[in-house]
Amino acid sequence: MDLNADLGEGFGIWRLGDDEALLGLITSANVACGFHGGDPATMHRVCEGAARRGVAVGAQVGYRDLAGFGRRAIAYDFAELRDETIYQLGALDAFCRLFRTRVRYLKPHGALYHAVSCDEAQAAALVAAVSGYDYELPLLCPPGSVLAQLAVGAGLRVVAEGFADRNYRPNGSLVPRSAANALVTGPEQVAERAVRMATEGTVVAVDGSVVPCQVESICLHGDTPGAVRSAELVRAALIAANVPLTPFA
Amino acid sequence: MDLNADLGEGFGIWRLGDDEALLGLITSANVACGFHGGDPATMHRVCEGAARRGVAVGAQVGYRDLAGFGRRAIAYDFAELRDETIYQLGALDAFCRLFRTRVRYLKPHGALYHAVSCDEAQAAALVAAVSGYDYELPLLCPPGSVLAQLAVGAGLRVVAEGFADRNYRPNGSLVPRSAANALVTGPEQVAERAVRMATEGTVVAVDGSVVPCQVESICLHGDTPGAVRSAELVRAALIAANVPLTPFA
Amino acid sequence: MDLNADLGEGFGIWRLGDDEALLGLITSANVACGFHGGDPATMHRVCEGAARRGVAVGAQVGYRDLAGFGRRAIAYDFAELRDETIYQLGALDAFCRLFRTRVRYLKPHGALYHAVSCDEAQAAALVAAVSGYDYELPLLCPPGSVLAQLAVGAGLRVVAEGFADRNYRPNGSLVPRSAANALVTGPEQVAERAVRMATEGTVVAVDGSVVPCQVESICLHGDTPGAVRSAELVRAALIAANVPLTPFA
Amino acid sequence: MDLNADLGEGFGIWRLGDDEALLGLITSANVACGFHGGDPATMHRVCEGAARRGVAVGAQVGYRDLAGFGRRAIAYDFAELRDETIYQLGALDAFCRLFRTRVRYLKPHGALYHAVSCDEAQAAALVAAVSGYDYELPLLCPPGSVLAQLAVGAGLRVVAEGFADRNYRPNGSLVPRSAANALVTGPEQVAERAVRMATEGTVVAVDGSVVPCQVESICLHGDTPGAVRSAELVRAALIAANVPLTPFA
Repeated sequence: MDLNADLGEGFGIWRLGDDEALLGLITSANVACGFHGGDPATMHRVCEGAARRGVAVGAQVGYRDLAGFGRRAIAYDFAELRDETIYQLGALDAFCRLFRTRVRYLKPHGALYHAVSCDEAQAAALVAAVSGYDYELPLLCPPGSVLAQLAVGAGLRVVAEGFADRNYRPNGSLVPRSAANALVTGPEQVAERAVRMATEGTVVAVDGSVVPCQVESICLHGDTPGAVRSAELVRAALIAANVPLTPFA
Repeated sequence: MDLNADLGEGFGIWRLGDDEALLGLITSANVACGFHGGDPATMHRVCEGAARRGVAVGAQVGYRDLAGFGRRAIAYDFAELRDETIYQLGALDAFCRLFRTRVRYLKPHGALYHAVSCDEAQAAALVAAVSGYDYELPLLCPPGSVLAQLAVGAGLRVVAEGFADRNYRPNGSLVPRSAANALVTGPEQVAERAVRMATEGTVVAVDGSVVPCQVESICLHGDTPGAVRSAELVRAALIAANVPLTPFA
Repeated sequence: MDLNADLGEGFGIWRLGDDEALLGLITSANVACGFHGGDPATMHRVCEGAARRGVAVGAQVGYRDLAGFGRRAIAYDFAELRDETIYQLGALDAFCRLFRTRVRYLKPHGALYHAVSCDEAQAAALVAAVSGYDYELPLLCPPGSVLAQLAVGAGLRVVAEGFADRNYRPNGSLVPRSAANALVTGPEQVAERAVRMATEGTVVAVDGSVVPCQVESICLHGDTPGAVRSAELVRAALIAANVPLTPFA
Repeated sequence: MDLNADLGEGFGIWRLGDDEALLGLITSANVACGFHGGDPATMHRVCEGAARRGVAVGAQVGYRDLAGFGRRAIAYDFAELRDETIYQLGALDAFCRLFRTRVRYLKPHGALYHAVSCDEAQAAALVAAVSGYDYELPLLCPPGSVLAQLAVGAGLRVVAEGFADRNYRPNGSLVPRSAANALVTGPEQVAERAVRMATEGTVVAVDGSVVPCQVESICLHGDTPGAVRSAELVRAALIAANVPLTPFA
């Protein structure tokens, strides 16, 4: 099983999350590329730390919206988004190259992550960017999304991720963030759900039913209070359950 | 002889210079990378046009200062500038990669071009960026500059360029832009000076003396009125003088 | 009758439209405030020119999106947009103050202009900004829009504008830009329509019917080729028809 | 005596310092205006909190350099800096206006604060901005600086501030930050020095001599660990010494 988290999301003087601590716990780092967060110095530092620890680096591509942290929906057209994605991929890859490695996958961020669930033009833009830049790069994206469909159709590899700290509906989809019970809050419970995902490929839905949840990676959240503690528990529980932790890419 | 010019310096809705016309006249395009000018869509378009015509693409790296177009001196420290340079190199390289080519050289822009003549930390930052990213990339930079010295010391290739439309002092340096006679204004005279540089490796200084000017590239200015007409004349004069035009990189 | 146009939409080294020529033809200048276009130096220059000629200055408020020139829909929430609007109003007012005048109205730009036709939260944000900042400022906005309704409900003055170079449908709404016949292209025809709007308060719709078009201002487009020539014709035709030209605000 | 501190220096999702706690301790808030830090939402919030508590709001004007937090020297020319200062003043004033108050003073930030000690063009730009915008606004700036001289010459009010947590040289100037003993680190010692400044108008220099330090305000640092605790001690010590705390403006 792979553990991924968002890293390198500070900007200039401002910090967000504890990159250093998380690098010691995860196997794949979704590194911000400077459009919604992140900057060259941060990218350099995170890529160096990731290379040293054998953590895979993925491009966490986002909208060009520092003020909104990439969390506001923006009506990008296909070509704009394709080109901004290629730009971000190349910029991050340059820092990987310093440490004799490469960007190993792409994961959309924030409002873009949501948009590519249903917006064909934006999903196609990511597929075109990856196809043109390096068609061997897998996409870490919402299973069942328009992006996943288009990517598979284009011959790209799609990797599904699970959320141990989010509640699921009986149909296998996430309880929306707007709902009161969107989050699983107890750290031990989060860890237990991660183990179930890794060992059985299932999750217990909000109605108590056990539903399939076949994922190659589990996403840990990095910018919340207690994020590091929660990641430690998940990692420890997976190791205790003899689940090998290794990058999917 | 190589002919280089700054291209891709528009941003968003705003245009600057006639990229399309210049691409048909030059052999090396210094493409802006989004920090002082340029954006992903423009970079994509220019890299495509350059690849189609066999024009070499160089990274025209600048300060992160859209509002000042990279023309204001900024007191960058070494690591900041190194990392921003690596970022810009990688971003541009991604668009070259789409067209099965690569960034072939680096040229600093605006205030950075001036800074690296004398600022050791900033010059060293460019050398570190190129050494880390791709030590085979030549630097197109002011001859005799601190950057040229440090680059040669680091084993990098340095390429000297001449300015057919600028006046030279008897010691071989440029008449500063602040001087009344900084520019050579007659297009025919500019073309004649380009031919002299290419065929004899000399230039006629302001005092009438003939001084050495051994350059591998001649820089054409792209954002002035009459830029395209001037470039056409230079190109035609060089061809008429049987000077082969080919990228230096 | 008032004539309004978008001005001050350059940024840094980049120009857009001929501010100087338009200032001599219009009575109200919609000045960009630095978020989608415009910068402090441009705002200073345009406010000075407007004050000298008795042209009213309005705040052309836009999304914080230089790269997209404010033309991409962005899912702002109420408070974000309210605060960015207040910020832009104050910034522009500071330059008016230098010339003993004030911002005299607000007009939304680009994607925001379209959003406030139907998006309640964004329309309410503009109303809240104007109510808090200066409730005597009129809003120049699409008649029948949600913004117009909310503004009137809040006791603000709403000013309707007509588009002499756009075709209208029999119900008085504009033919959408996506339609082939969205634009009226002949400059003489545009001028004739402006005179009809000013003298009769009507417009000839695409089916030939004459429909009411009661407007206090006519919008001239400033960033198209031929914009200045078209504005000259409209102005001359209105003067020839004895229509007094004066700011609405 | 007045106590001032830098506030509102977050940007978007990123926070810096504890604005809320400091607002309860200081009498003047130097509010960032969006160029080196700060954004409209933050400015709104801080101006509201300041108005509620009777804290004076000053414009903490900085270079347009979010990535460098306004701490990198930039070679602005006079007109650029004047116009960016006017822009920032107006933007902040708009939020004060919501709460029936006004910007009450200007304080330069970071590299600009240092530049105006000696750079005539930049100092003159701030003087021109304040003279044009509101010549009754005092400037909080380094005593003895070129800015102070030019401002006094232009008839503006200049207010001197002291730094209770910085060491002074016998000539009354600050020990440079680069020196090992630049800072006074013990919180009680800082508080004691603040009381001496307020009651005797002196400071004990590094050589033990007592030198004059006639200031109208004491600057507290807000973005360091322990900043709030230190501010509490200074405030408590001044109150215990019967020093009335009130805005200078």
